[in-house]
Amino acid sequence: MAKNHELMANKKVVLSSINPKDKGPFDHKEEVEKEALKLKEELEQLQEKLAAAKEQAVLFVIQGMDCSGKDGVTKHVFAGLNPQGVSAHSFKAPTDVEKRHDFIWRAHNNAPELGQITIFNRSYYEDVLITRVHGAVSDKEAKRRFKHINLFESLLADSGVKVVKIFLHISKEFQLEKLKSRIEDSSKNWKFDPSDLQERKHWDQYQGYYEQVFEKCSKHAPWHIVPSDHRWYRNYAVLRIAVDALRSMELQDPPANPELKAFLKEIKEQERP
Amino acid sequence: MAKNHELMANKKVVLSSINPKDKGPFDHKEEVEKEALKLKEELEQLQEKLAAAKEQAVLFVIQGMDCSGKDGVTKHVFAGLNPQGVSAHSFKAPTDVEKRHDFIWRAHNNAPELGQITIFNRSYYEDVLITRVHGAVSDKEAKRRFKHINLFESLLADSGVKVVKIFLHISKEFQLEKLKSRIEDSSKNWKFDPSDLQERKHWDQYQGYYEQVFEKCSKHAPWHIVPSDHRWYRNYAVLRIAVDALRSMELQDPPANPELKAFLKEIKEQERP
Repeated sequence: MAKNHELMANKKVVLSSINPKDKGPFDHKEEVEKEALKLKEELEQLQEKLAAAKEQAVLFVIQGMDCSGKDGVTKHVFAGLNPQGVSAHSFKAPTDVEKRHDFIWRAHNNAPELGQITIFNRSYYEDVLITRVHGAVSDKEAKRRFKHINLFESLLADSGVKVVKIFLHISKEFQLEKLKSRIEDSSKNWKFDPSDLQERKHWDQYQGYYEQVFEKCSKHAPWHIVPSDHRWYRNYAVLRIAVDALRSMELQDPPANPELKAFLKEIKEQERP
Repeated sequence: MAKNHELMANKKVVLSSINPKDKGPFDHKEEVEKEALKLKEELEQLQEKLAAAKEQAVLFVIQGMDCSGKDGVTKHVFAGLNPQGVSAHSFKAPTDVEKRHDFIWRAHNNAPELGQITIFNRSYYEDVLITRVHGAVSDKEAKRRFKHINLFESLLADSGVKVVKIFLHISKEFQLEKLKSRIEDSSKNWKFDPSDLQERKHWDQYQGYYEQVFEKCSKHAPWHIVPSDHRWYRNYAVLRIAVDALRSMELQDPPANPELKAFLKEIKEQERP
């Protein structure tokens, strides 16, 4: 497995060959806790630099089957950052207005401005996943959409927005356990959505369509397949991916205004009684 | 001083009578640290309930003179919350499009949806503050705007959005020290905005216009005047205000779906080989 579970561009992927229970070189949560704390601090510092310079931005696209932990990872990795520099956007079924636009429109509307980090919880990728499973998008249309997705991601890349795509990879048994606990644990009842049970019936089809996405839409921004049956490992792996993404941007403090000293003089004048 | 530095509605306020160096009953930062940690955890839990129920929302409006710590307090109090449930919006000089709308429009556009917490760093109140100082808004127009602000806040209140308004109260000396450090400390240079020095000349006028705002715009949502010369006390006081605001909403877990058990049966059927 490549660094940070990153996939090679344009290569065929077989999801069943990737172990969702993988924990990298670790056995226990305790082994990563110390480094995770350090990484979180680094992420906060990198975000401040990103926000100060306002020359680049980051878009994290988080995908995964129901119960894979998209909400959880968003909270665990990105809580702690200055809310002024981060926004998270959940993509639900499109509204009437959104339906009257192309499938990229609402994503583009919510793309980060320079200086910002945006997290997409689901994304335009749903338009080549759930829509395909339910027959609203043909194979031919899906191909066309792959092309438009690649064009959109190249537009962002050319405009200073780093796109980082993460698939939370879980096993079918893990999903079952999560669904059960949402029914059996009353404090989690509100998270239970009966339609998840319907989608579960299409598990293999979803995995197949995901494999196509990973192969066809990796030209301008790579996918990371994060083993997610162990929540602690999932959170740690995504945190690493996030920190590495920002590190790679070589963020600099903005240059100081050369006339700053002149303002000191003005301040002193204002101080005089 | 009332609980949480809350002002009485519709009462005249004299800012110079409120000590920006006030630390409540405390002397040192260490005295509040333990409680602050507990309050932060409670805020996280309350936010989850708010997000789950999707029946109410909270809008924190943060105002204050330049260097009063609007950015800092947003980071210190609200970082740690799930980014999916929080958004922060900074109001800068209006864009060309925004200028072609009424002064409430852009604020309304960014108001929280039910289930969300939104933080306004500056707000529609700037339209009766900096605009007045620079003569773009007459006294008569300001009066009209006070009325529209009250109507807007009553609309939000009637629609399940709790509006909590916070003024970060600093001394003129404190601002001077901060401005100096932004020039002298190279890591803070990028925060220095020469226009802050110009605005500083209008200090007394700003304080007077703020006093009018506190008296005239407190009908549907109270103002809190938070002494902010001590950053630790400011952060602690705003955290308390935030927690108390969410506590007062009596958030409940959403009711469980009565048909949940039937789904357990369906899961078991799906489990069969």
